[in-house]
Amino acid sequence: MTAERRMAAEGLTLPPLPRPNGRYALTREAGGLLYVAGQTPTRDGQLVLRGTVGLDVSVEEARAAAGICALNVLAIVAAAASGGLARVRLIRVAGFVRCVDAFDLQPHVIDGASEIFQLALGERGEHVRTAVGTNALPRNAPVEIETVFELVP
Amino acid sequence: MTAERRMAAEGLTLPPLPRPNGRYALTREAGGLLYVAGQTPTRDGQLVLRGTVGLDVSVEEARAAAGICALNVLAIVAAAASGGLARVRLIRVAGFVRCVDAFDLQPHVIDGASEIFQLALGERGEHVRTAVGTNALPRNAPVEIETVFELVP
Amino acid sequence: MTAERRMAAEGLTLPPLPRPNGRYALTREAGGLLYVAGQTPTRDGQLVLRGTVGLDVSVEEARAAAGICALNVLAIVAAAASGGLARVRLIRVAGFVRCVDAFDLQPHVIDGASEIFQLALGERGEHVRTAVGTNALPRNAPVEIETVFELVP
Repeated sequence: MTAERRMAAEGLTLPPLPRPNGRYALTREAGGLLYVAGQTPTRDGQLVLRGTVGLDVSVEEARAAAGICALNVLAIVAAAASGGLARVRLIRVAGFVRCVDAFDLQPHVIDGASEIFQLALGERGEHVRTAVGTNALPRNAPVEIETVFELVP
Repeated sequence: MTAERRMAAEGLTLPPLPRPNGRYALTREAGGLLYVAGQTPTRDGQLVLRGTVGLDVSVEEARAAAGICALNVLAIVAAAASGGLARVRLIRVAGFVRCVDAFDLQPHVIDGASEIFQLALGERGEHVRTAVGTNALPRNAPVEIETVFELVP
Repeated sequence: MTAERRMAAEGLTLPPLPRPNGRYALTREAGGLLYVAGQTPTRDGQLVLRGTVGLDVSVEEARAAAGICALNVLAIVAAAASGGLARVRLIRVAGFVRCVDAFDLQPHVIDGASEIFQLALGERGEHVRTAVGTNALPRNAPVEIETVFELVP
């Protein structure tokens, strides 16, 4: 079953390709790996959620926003990898959660991205992960996700 | 001399394998590299230290906690790499130190991990490093360590 | 045109090689990639700027400091890669901006590094990027840059 079919079965579709928010590219390929630029929860160039978890953003809102980051990553990879999502294997996720100092459920927030990746890619969506908090993110996004994929023959 | 012997000479042993704290895997292999999930100072599933450096955690406590993160990494790599610690070379360490805004000795804290890696792996434990502060970490851990190894024949 | 010539045309030269600020190496090579240790805006071992963006450091000062980080990275890569800057392609930049909680222009700050890389390396300087905020950095640096390059034949 293709990634797009797995996603459709859950009511998910690939969003439009996000644009870079600065002087960088969305992907670079090297050593059989596909590096993807950090993604925030944007749709059509606008953030769908701004704020700080534990202050004006709830943990479940942030978790859903992490899923939107993951969909943006998948749209980028589908466009960049020759062969699309059928030819990649997710390796690494780094998740940054903008939060108050006392917030400690960053893993629960970033699970919102991990679940989308595994739903779309199945076993090839399993990955290592680092989740941390931060006091500030670009455009006051509540979450940002960086990823590295392997290109598979 | 094996990594395990070098460690034993310093009174160190590999801890039990940590468990993932969310929907991710402990390791992924790609392009001759072994990526390892971010590790906090846990032992038997419990954090051995919580808090914020400069507030309720001292720099030396955090440095020792970084060493515990490194031991968790080594336990994971010993179990995941075919050939164990004899077949890996550390490449990259990223260290996140939960601290007050004025704290600026993140390198001293993360040296606690770097020293364990070099003690265990000798020359193959030398690595590049990025050390930064953060206001919040999962389960209020004071430090988190992410690593990438090379698999050597 | 060489990287050094492109830089000279803009009045830029490679600075002296920075030293590690702890127990780590400046570069590691693996899988055709060159990993570089995180760089702060130092010159001759001293930070040229300290502080927090939005508090005592302006966004334009931080942007210039990011450019100094990039020059340090280029000096390291020129010394480490056999064939120097002619034999590398930048892949990934991670930028950490020390800032107040409300600051949201991390991409504008890190563009200061991205522009130096693209000026020096041309097309081989294009890269993916993750930019985040943080409350604290080593020695109170306002910005830190981590990079991965590909070694090209």
